[in-house]
Amino acid sequence: MVWVHRESLPSVGAMTDVLSTLLTVNGERLWDSLMELAEIGAYSDEATGLTGVDRQSLTDADAAGRRLVIEWMTAAGLDVTIDEMGSLFGRREGSEPGLAPVLAGSHIDSVATAGAFDGCLGVLGALEVVRSLNDAGITTRRPIVVTAWTEEEGVRFGTDMLGSAVAAGRLTLDYAYDLVDEQGLRFGDELVRIGFRGDRPVRLDPPHAYVECHIEQGPVLAEQGYDVGVVTGVQAISWQKVTVHGRAAHAGTTPTELRADAGLAAAQIVVKLREMVDSGAYGRLRATVGHLRTSPGLPSVVPDRAELTVDLRNPDDAHMAEAEADLAAFLTTLPGTQPGLRVETRRMAKTTHVPFDEGVQDVIAAACADLGHDTMRLMSGAGHDAQEMAAITPTAMVFVRGEYDGISHNPREYSTPEACTAGINVLATTVLRLANH
Amino acid sequence: MVWVHRESLPSVGAMTDVLSTLLTVNGERLWDSLMELAEIGAYSDEATGLTGVDRQSLTDADAAGRRLVIEWMTAAGLDVTIDEMGSLFGRREGSEPGLAPVLAGSHIDSVATAGAFDGCLGVLGALEVVRSLNDAGITTRRPIVVTAWTEEEGVRFGTDMLGSAVAAGRLTLDYAYDLVDEQGLRFGDELVRIGFRGDRPVRLDPPHAYVECHIEQGPVLAEQGYDVGVVTGVQAISWQKVTVHGRAAHAGTTPTELRADAGLAAAQIVVKLREMVDSGAYGRLRATVGHLRTSPGLPSVVPDRAELTVDLRNPDDAHMAEAEADLAAFLTTLPGTQPGLRVETRRMAKTTHVPFDEGVQDVIAAACADLGHDTMRLMSGAGHDAQEMAAITPTAMVFVRGEYDGISHNPREYSTPEACTAGINVLATTVLRLANH
Repeated sequence: MVWVHRESLPSVGAMTDVLSTLLTVNGERLWDSLMELAEIGAYSDEATGLTGVDRQSLTDADAAGRRLVIEWMTAAGLDVTIDEMGSLFGRREGSEPGLAPVLAGSHIDSVATAGAFDGCLGVLGALEVVRSLNDAGITTRRPIVVTAWTEEEGVRFGTDMLGSAVAAGRLTLDYAYDLVDEQGLRFGDELVRIGFRGDRPVRLDPPHAYVECHIEQGPVLAEQGYDVGVVTGVQAISWQKVTVHGRAAHAGTTPTELRADAGLAAAQIVVKLREMVDSGAYGRLRATVGHLRTSPGLPSVVPDRAELTVDLRNPDDAHMAEAEADLAAFLTTLPGTQPGLRVETRRMAKTTHVPFDEGVQDVIAAACADLGHDTMRLMSGAGHDAQEMAAITPTAMVFVRGEYDGISHNPREYSTPEACTAGINVLATTVLRLANH
Repeated sequence: MVWVHRESLPSVGAMTDVLSTLLTVNGERLWDSLMELAEIGAYSDEATGLTGVDRQSLTDADAAGRRLVIEWMTAAGLDVTIDEMGSLFGRREGSEPGLAPVLAGSHIDSVATAGAFDGCLGVLGALEVVRSLNDAGITTRRPIVVTAWTEEEGVRFGTDMLGSAVAAGRLTLDYAYDLVDEQGLRFGDELVRIGFRGDRPVRLDPPHAYVECHIEQGPVLAEQGYDVGVVTGVQAISWQKVTVHGRAAHAGTTPTELRADAGLAAAQIVVKLREMVDSGAYGRLRATVGHLRTSPGLPSVVPDRAELTVDLRNPDDAHMAEAEADLAAFLTTLPGTQPGLRVETRRMAKTTHVPFDEGVQDVIAAACADLGHDTMRLMSGAGHDAQEMAAITPTAMVFVRGEYDGISHNPREYSTPEACTAGINVLATTVLRLANH
């Protein structure tokens, strides 16, 4: 296998010979597939009163979703293989099978409070591209591979982009297998349990290009009035777990000045992060504490322990480094305010800003124009499997606008059938052009 | 049954006839009993590296603790009955059985991270008083009843002083039976499951007096150099559960100004409470958020829900009312800072300042003096079963000094054998004098 680093990747180069082709898909079939997959892991969401999706990685629901996707891949004539991480690959042969294939895909695992679109649009969209190629009787020069990566969300085993990161060689198989979830269940064991530890070698031969269509998960496209966008890259992302150790004590009798209240320190971290965001000193920093829990968690006991996760995002690596350094400095001040406190941090994930390939971006932009879609270029706020693929192959993404301020990781997540069809038409035309390149 | 309200209670009155008697106990036997009971529910505490006690109410450990106490009561010749709330009563007959008895006791249920002393000293101390009366061949005029109340801590079913509150008539049996724990298990069902739903009617005939010995759970006695203290009353206590409803959203893509972050609001409440305490505007206010948890609790999802408990204490009812009102006002401002937030509060417990009977306080103070212990009067920061008994009978408490700043609800909780013996000698002399009154 040739191992190529991003720095030395050739771009896809001039493609004037294939730029005249167009491919449009069956939007109704795409929508029906999205809705059918969303039934797997469906739950009734108390907060919104809507039906949400909970299909976390390597659960029974995830396995059922995978089986449905494989059934659809097989029905579309794809040759399905499963790698050692459980990621799915459905290959449509090209007229020159020896050429590196074009990969298109995303993921079908979800967070605990998800909608129907995040990840699924990219997988089922790529499947719809293949179905439409079949309908049109088109054979491409290069093979096309539809991919569904394992554990993109990272919510169950704590590391996101897991399947694509191991495929791209950033993380090892052993690292992934030894991850454990909150219940202490091991990734490797759960993968075997659901029957999806495949035998395809996990390190991926660099494909010709990788293209991923995804919902924007933000408000920008809707604000600007576009259905689709060309993604220029992914902002820097940092995940840490912070554990504050204090001292359990009686709530009624322990004088305030003698307390080492782990919960108070955790709350101060949350408030400090919002102050950092609001200060504007760190550019377009976003900070989120999604998980916060005190122990022992009793009304009359000062917490002796608090655990929280800190998710920082920044399109600028220098601003991100400043934010991380200032947060770390703040954490060191906490024991001074409450003697006896101890603060531990553990890095869960960290990626710098990943720029996407300008050649692939141009192919996507041209497809938009040829299909009559006004568009814009924008950076992704969320991490995606594409950022892992970008290390080994020319890569870019298509974004589809979301409604309701682009809310995502929430049952209210919604993109219209028109926007989804537009995005997958762009994906189809892009994949067709790259595969004939 | 005669039902007497605290306002109209007669004090115990002049007792010059019995003030010359003294009773001292077997401190070694008391200590051995404390250590033996502490083995039930023992666990290895990670935070301190010590062995702690987790004997929460109506668990199997609580049942085992109850069986040991009953075995010891029976061995001491007591007639044991169990009331409809599971509270234990061990009666030592007096020479005039028709007279109202003197009650002495406390509780053996614990928080999840407890030590060996909280509650247990009062129950096993009262048992040691009876054992010592037996050793000395003393028969008192009035009966003496050793009591162990059910669910004093309130950590499992959310209402503290539960057994004594129902016995005193402040809460109903139905209210208690229908309480559920975090797992949805019902108090009434758990009481039956552990075999401790007794048939003694729960409403208690007012005894002659109630005396409870307890560790101070604070630093005052140690700071002043006393082993024992006379408790003048219990400060006001307020428990609320606050639930913040926000909106789940993607951590990387949702602009900060569009978020309704329930976790941030919860953190702001915690920080605000500490500011209120530090302001000095609410007298000797103590505020504790022991339980704080965000949902769904994932690193990349803005929390749509946060739950926290607020424990407020104040020796002054007016200051307590001001603190509660100002907290409530602060909660109403939160949706203004993050549109879409909703804040719910539920009252878990509320007691005003409970003053103890001055006559019983004087009997305790005289016992201290006659036994050669310097002492002081102080108010209790923690709630105790004595505050419920104070509604139906002349009541006061003996405090025993704690080491390490009086830390409690923690495996480091410790009182010396000397201090425990001193406290129970005071309890013994007080009970003997009251029972001969």
